[in-house]
Parts: sequence; C-alpha cells; structure tokens
Amino acid sequence: MTRARLAVEAGTKVAFQGEPGAFSQRAGYQICGRSVAPLPCATFARVFDAVAAGEAGLAVVPIENSLAGSIYENYDLLLAHTLEAVAETYVRIEHHLIGFPGTPLSRIRQVYSHPVALAQCRRFLGRMSRAEQVAFYDTAGAVKELRQRELRESAAIASSDAARIYGLSILRRNIEDNRENFTRFLALARRGRYPAGGAKTTVVFALKNEPGALFKALSVFALRNIDLTKIESRPIHGKPWEYLFYVDLQSDVRSRECANALRHLREMTLFFRVLGSYRSL
Amino acid sequence: MTRARLAVEAGTKVAFQGEPGAFSQRAGYQICGRSVAPLPCATFARVFDAVAAGEAGLAVVPIENSLAGSIYENYDLLLAHTLEAVAETYVRIEHHLIGFPGTPLSRIRQVYSHPVALAQCRRFLGRMSRAEQVAFYDTAGAVKELRQRELRESAAIASSDAARIYGLSILRRNIEDNRENFTRFLALARRGRYPAGGAKTTVVFALKNEPGALFKALSVFALRNIDLTKIESRPIHGKPWEYLFYVDLQSDVRSRECANALRHLREMTLFFRVLGSYRSL
Repeated sequence: MTRARLAVEAGTKVAFQGEPGAFSQRAGYQICGRSVAPLPCATFARVFDAVAAGEAGLAVVPIENSLAGSIYENYDLLLAHTLEAVAETYVRIEHHLIGFPGTPLSRIRQVYSHPVALAQCRRFLGRMSRAEQVAFYDTAGAVKELRQRELRESAAIASSDAARIYGLSILRRNIEDNRENFTRFLALARRGRYPAGGAKTTVVFALKNEPGALFKALSVFALRNIDLTKIESRPIHGKPWEYLFYVDLQSDVRSRECANALRHLREMTLFFRVLGSYRSL
Repeated sequence: MTRARLAVEAGTKVAFQGEPGAFSQRAGYQICGRSVAPLPCATFARVFDAVAAGEAGLAVVPIENSLAGSIYENYDLLLAHTLEAVAETYVRIEHHLIGFPGTPLSRIRQVYSHPVALAQCRRFLGRMSRAEQVAFYDTAGAVKELRQRELRESAAIASSDAARIYGLSILRRNIEDNRENFTRFLALARRGRYPAGGAKTTVVFALKNEPGALFKALSVFALRNIDLTKIESRPIHGKPWEYLFYVDLQSDVRSRECANALRHLREMTLFFRVLGSYRSL
C-alpha cells in the first residue's frame, strides 16, 4: 500500500521529543516516509527551537490524545514560535509491557513509563500490585533505561518499536485500558517551506472581551457551512480570564469560502494567525 | 472588612489537595471563614472521594490558573462524580522563596516546589543557576519537607502561609515572573446541601457530531444576552475526537432567561448536566 507523503528531501532532519522508538518518531515516518533522519530531543521546547534555528527541517509533535486531551505545552509553543503546520497524522497508541526476554510478571518490581502511559494502563497495573510505578519523561526512554541499566526486575510501558530498537521483549501485549487511544500529531516547518493548503486549516485568535464574542466568531464558519473539528482555549498571559482560541476547520485556506470566513473573522479579532493549512497523511 | 461567606456549620471538614499552607486551604478560608476544619489530601481524586463518602462536608479545588490554564484533572473529576459547585473564589498566587532563617541565596543547592510553581518563577530561578530544581507534589509540602529533613542548603517556593505554618523564613518575596497570577477555585458539596443560585452557572454537555453543532449550542446564550466567561473542551473516552464542553455562564440558574436557555440547550445535547449555580466569594 502506498500512502500519500509530504514531499521532503531524503535525509531531512525531523525533530521529535523523546528517544528513538517514541510514538512521535513513528508519526514522523507516517508523514515523511523512511528516508528522513530522526532527531530525538529532550523537550518539546527543544523540538521547536531545532526547527526555528534551521537545525532540523521539520518537527513532529503530538497535539492531542483521544483520551488524555490536548497537549497544552505544544499549543503554547505554536504561539511562541512562527512555525507553520504542514501536515497532520494519527497514530494508534498501543501500550505493551516490555522487559528482558522471559521475565515472569511476578518478578517485576518497578514499571517505568511516561505518566500518561501509566495512567492509560491503570487496570492492568492494578493487578500488578507488587510493582511500583515510576514516572519517566518518555515511553521509549523508559525502555532504553531498562536496557542500559540492565534492570531485570523492572518493565517499561512503550511501543513495539521501542522493544525492537532496544532489543527487549514484549511481555504482555496491549495492556491499555481503552483501545480507542489515538494521538494526533502535527508536522511543523519554517513558514513558506511547503505549499500551504489541504483539507484542514488551523487558526488562533483573540477576541474582544464582550458578550457574544465567541458566538459571533464562530458564526463566520457556520454561515459558510465550514465544519469545526476542534476548539481549544488557552489563557493569555497578563490578561487574567481572557483566552486565545485555537480552532481547526475542515476547510482549505486556498478555497474562496475559507478565505472569506477568515477575512470576516479578522474584522472581530484583536489577534489572528493562520497556523497552517494541510493534509492528513 | 466583612466578606460574604458560604453558610457552613462551624467545624465542617473542608477537603483540599496538598499540605496545610497550600493555596487551596486559603481558598477554603476565603469561601467559608476560619471556623471550618481543613482536611489535607494527597490527590485531587482523594479530595472528591472524601466529599462523596461524607468524610468531608466540602471540597475546595483549583479549576483554572490565569497563566497555566485549566486544571484538566479536576474537570474530569467533576464529571466522574455528582458533586455540585456551591461557590467560587479567586486567590492571587504570590510565590516566595522559603528556607531556614538567614540562609544566603548563594548557599542554596536545591529548590523544591510544584512543577507549575517552578515554571512560574523561571526568570528568578535562571539567576540561581547553581541550584537544581526539584519537582514536588505540592508547594506547601515542599516547605514541610525542608523543615522535616532539615534541608539547610535547600529552599522551597510556596505561599507566605506555608512559611509561617512550618516556621521557616521568606528569603525572597514575590519571585514569580508575572504578577497577573490568579487561581480560581470551586467549592463542591454533595447535591442539595446548599441552595443553588448565584451570579454564575457552570454546565457540561455533549453535542451531536455535526457541522455547526457548537455554534447552535452557543446561540441559546447569545440569543438571550447571557455572557459566557469560559468554555473548555475535554475528550469523551471511547469516542475519539468528540468532546464534552464545560461552559461558565454569567447567569443565575433561578432566573427565567437562564432556565429558558438551558431548556433550549437540552434540545440539542446528547448529554447535559448543571454542575452548579453559585456566588463568587
């Protein structure tokens, strides 16, 4: 099966948060294919900086999980930087219990993973009552830690990619509480690097603090039958209880209706920016 | 100055997350006065459970910070429980560097606090480059830790209440990056314990997944000139990319216009609940 890809040059560095084997790396491959060079970063801030500074050609960051909700840090970083969203992709999150081959579950004393992954496997971990849960900055990083420190009485929760990369075994498959677990990722680039346009457009704006302001803002889309797939609000620093709204539209910025809606929206915003118009890959 | 208070019996137990001296405890006193008995809890889940089980008469939980945004865990807990919001209050968050009396800043090797407090004092901490930042579950708990373990080369970031309660000193006042730092708290009780009504009403609802659904939902308020002060969306578990909306209205549930608006809203919701109608105290 051939999938549509973002047209990136082979060898392009793709920054992501976490260690090799992280779900973000898989998202990067889904968007760009296998010819790119993953660039693991310790923090999301570092991922954005790497692209802004030209060290990497693209960033791939999670923006939302179907169970845990939005990743607010990345919404705030989108605003702090001027990068452009150039593609999105969805990754099914499957959590596996990973350890040294043949380790019986009864021998495991610690389970390492990202706090969100631990929370998403609560039922399974509840049955491993003798194992302590240890929060780690990254799922794949937890597997790497096991391997490097030879922690034979520990296990990690991470992807099958991470098990393969660090040469450990899946001790128990799909230990997540809820199978409807997907993460949406955005690919980000410096402005103008890729042609804008696609089925989805993301905008951010601030409104005057007056009654009905949000209703009026949303009317510019409703009047044109443009569907909203997501609305997110974040506080504006220095203006308590005023908000920035991030809205995802099922509309291409190159279409007349989208252009008209956004022109209409700008009449009523104090601040407005198109964060990108892109395809789902 | 006498403030309006919630009419609670003296000695009522008020559950909050954190140790004595936490900002939530101060919020509890603002709402109820000093005659109540604070009940410190380790987690937000424990706070909700304490009220649900009748161990405490009230809970006081942070719902939103003017810089960090919503406290999503508490939005999710509001939905998982059937408690009712009976009052709100706002606390100005002032972060102080706290340690043993007379400790010179140059001697400090670790700074303990809640990760959000550490993030809100980034500029000040940037100048203390030799001090390592240590994430702790609670600001006041960090001060307690210093005191109990006699950590004379460490400091904590917390409130002046925490410094007083644990007998330590404020080494540097108001080290927060941004003075516009407020947290909004809700007081929660079992349903029917307190008469409903007040300037603000909070509702939560789910909409059919169809174009214009949110716009139509908000129209029930706009058509009646009811102001929205906040809208928050949270994922619905098991239904990827569908959302629950939490909306704060500047309206009293006892008024005819609010009752009409909510009746109108119910015509278009798949799920609807009034989380409370209450005063600001």
